Amino acid sequence: MKIAVIGNGGVGKALIELFGNKKEKMAAEGLNLTLCAHLDSQGGILDPDGIRLPQLMAHNQHNLPLKEYPKGGAPHLGLEEVLKIEDLDVLIELTPTNKETGEPGLTHITKALTKGIHVITANKGPVMLAYHRLKKLAEKHEAQLWIGCTTGGALPSVNGGMMDLAGAEITSIEGVLNGTTNFILEEMKETGCAYGTALRKAQETGIAETDPTLDVEGWDTATKLLILTNVLMQEDRKLTDVVVEGITGVTAEAIQKAADDGGKIKLVGRAQKTEKRLTLAVKPEVLFSDHPLYGVDGKNKAVRYTTDTLGDLTLMGGASGLIPAAASVLRDLMNLHRGYRY
Amino acid sequence: MKIAVIGNGGVGKALIELFGNKKEKMAAEGLNLTLCAHLDSQGGILDPDGIRLPQLMAHNQHNLPLKEYPKGGAPHLGLEEVLKIEDLDVLIELTPTNKETGEPGLTHITKALTKGIHVITANKGPVMLAYHRLKKLAEKHEAQLWIGCTTGGALPSVNGGMMDLAGAEITSIEGVLNGTTNFILEEMKETGCAYGTALRKAQETGIAETDPTLDVEGWDTATKLLILTNVLMQEDRKLTDVVVEGITGVTAEAIQKAADDGGKIKLVGRAQKTEKRLTLAVKPEVLFSDHPLYGVDGKNKAVRYTTDTLGDLTLMGGASGLIPAAASVLRDLMNLHRGYRY
Repeated sequence: MKIAVIGNGGVGKALIELFGNKKEKMAAEGLNLTLCAHLDSQGGILDPDGIRLPQLMAHNQHNLPLKEYPKGGAPHLGLEEVLKIEDLDVLIELTPTNKETGEPGLTHITKALTKGIHVITANKGPVMLAYHRLKKLAEKHEAQLWIGCTTGGALPSVNGGMMDLAGAEITSIEGVLNGTTNFILEEMKETGCAYGTALRKAQETGIAETDPTLDVEGWDTATKLLILTNVLMQEDRKLTDVVVEGITGVTAEAIQKAADDGGKIKLVGRAQKTEKRLTLAVKPEVLFSDHPLYGVDGKNKAVRYTTDTLGDLTLMGGASGLIPAAASVLRDLMNLHRGYRY
Repeated sequence: MKIAVIGNGGVGKALIELFGNKKEKMAAEGLNLTLCAHLDSQGGILDPDGIRLPQLMAHNQHNLPLKEYPKGGAPHLGLEEVLKIEDLDVLIELTPTNKETGEPGLTHITKALTKGIHVITANKGPVMLAYHRLKKLAEKHEAQLWIGCTTGGALPSVNGGMMDLAGAEITSIEGVLNGTTNFILEEMKETGCAYGTALRKAQETGIAETDPTLDVEGWDTATKLLILTNVLMQEDRKLTDVVVEGITGVTAEAIQKAADDGGKIKLVGRAQKTEKRLTLAVKPEVLFSDHPLYGVDGKNKAVRYTTDTLGDLTLMGGASGLIPAAASVLRDLMNLHRGYRY
C-alpha cells in the first residue's frame, strides 16, 4: 500500500512512530506500507521507493523540517508532485482545521479523491463543511473518505455508529465529546471552585488551550455532533443548525445543587430524531447515575446511540494525546486495508 | 446476495422479520437479499429463485413448520441440498448451542466453509470449540466466518475489539457479559433479598431459564470471555483454562457490605495479559463508581478493552431479546456486504 502524509505536527510525527513500531504487526495482517511522500508547510520528502521509517523517526527527533531530510527532502514540494506518484493508494491529510474555509485540507482531499486516491483525514474543517459533497466525489471516483479521527480521536464514535450498528437506524446521538470541558466541570465539582479557577488549572496542566473558546463555548462539541449526525443519520446540516450553549455560565452553586440531588453537570451534545424533525443542541445538562454518560470522567469522552433494532450502545474511552490520535488514523488505515467500504 | 438460513427458533423468525422490514434500507445500500433456503429440524424450504418474505412471515405467524410452506416446503430437506444451490453466498447458522460437541452447527459450518460459502453464526458451540480451525478452513477456501452474535448478542463485543481497535493490541478484556446474573445481583442489592429469592423473580419474569446453571455458575460468561480472548488476542485457549466462580455463593450480607463501601458486586469475566502469561477468570467482584463497568445495570451487558495505543474502550448496551439478537446477525451480514474481511 503506497501512502502519502500531509502534515507533520504532533499527530503526524506520532503516526510515523506508529508506522515504524507497528511494522511487523501490520505485515502479519498483510499490510505492507510504503511511505512515498510526507509534506509539511515548508516542503517535504518525496521518495517513490519509500521513505525509510527509522531514519525519518531519527530526523523528527531533532525537530528538523522535512525539507532538510537527506534523501528526497526538498523545499516547495507540494500536493501536485505527491499526486503524480504512480499507484498512490492513500493520502493521509493532517493539516490544521479551519472551520470557515476548510482549507488547505478541503483542496487536498478534493484533488486526491478526484484522482481516485483514498483519503484518511483528521481535519474537521472539510468534513463539517462538505462531507456529502466529498462523499459523492469519492463514490464517483471509486475512492473512500475515512474520517474516524475527526470526532473524538481514539474514541471510535464514527466506527461505533457505522460498523457496530450496521443495519440499524440511529434515532438519537448523545455525547460527552470534549475532554477539556469535562475536566473543568469535574474540577469544579471536586473542589467547589469557580469556573475561572478550574479553567486556569486546565490551562496550567496543558489540558485547555491558551484560547479555550472553541472548547468552553461548546463549538468543539457542536462540530463533532454535527459530523456524527451528518455521517450516521445521513443528514446534511450546518453548524448554524446546532443550538449551542457552553459551560462559561455554569456556576459553582449550580454544580453543588446538582451534586446535592445526586447528579453531575456535563456538556452534552444531542441529536434527537422524531418522526417530524431533527433537533441538534449542545448544552450543560444534569445527568444522574442511571444515565450511561454519568460515569464519563476526567478527560474521557463517550457517545451513546439509540437505535431501532439494536437497542442502545454507549462507547466510552478515547484516550487523549498524540499517540492515541495517530492510532485512530492507523485504525482507519487498517479497516480500509481489511476491505471495509466506508 | 444469495443466502440460506438454518434454524427457525425465535432468532430465526425474528431475522426473517428484519429481512422483510429492512428490505428497502438494505437495498439502498446495494444489498439485495435472495433467501434461497430455510431449514428447521424437520425439513425446510428450498427455492433458488428466492422465498417471498411477506408470505414466509405470514406462515411463521401461524407457528407452522417450514416443511408445510406451500412453495418449496418439504420434509427431510437437509444441508446437502442447500449447499448445492448455485452461487450461494452466505449460510446463516442458528442451530442451538452444544458446548460439548458443537453439533450440528460444527458440521454445517465446516461443510459450508469448505465450499467457499461465508458463514454467519449465532451458535457458540463451534466457535468456542474450534474457532481457529474453522478460521483457517475459511481462509483456505476464501470464505469468511462471522461470529458477532456469539458474545453478547446486540452488544458489539467482537466488532468493538476487532474494528474499533484495529491496529491496536488488546492487553486486557473485562466484561459483564451475562444479563441474567447482572439482574439477580441488582435485585439482591435493591431489595436486600437472598440469592434464591432474586433467582425466582428472574425466572418468573422470564429473564432466567428454568435451569439457570449455565448463567449463574458463570459458564455463559466464561464461554463469551473465551471466545473474545481467542478471537481478539489470537489465543487458542479452552474452557478448562478459565477459572470459573458463579454467583450462587453471593450472600445478601456481602452485597450489603459492598454497598456500604460504595460498591456493587458484579460477575466479571477477565482476561489479563502480562509479558509472561495470560490469565482467564470469571468471578464476582466488587466494583466501585470509578470503574467503567460499575454502571452496567439491569439486563445490560458491557465489555472493556485495554490497549497499547488506543487507551481503554468500554462498550455498553446490548439489548436483550429476539429482535436485537437477529439484528446482530444482520449487522454481520451488512458488514460482510460492505467488504470487511473478518
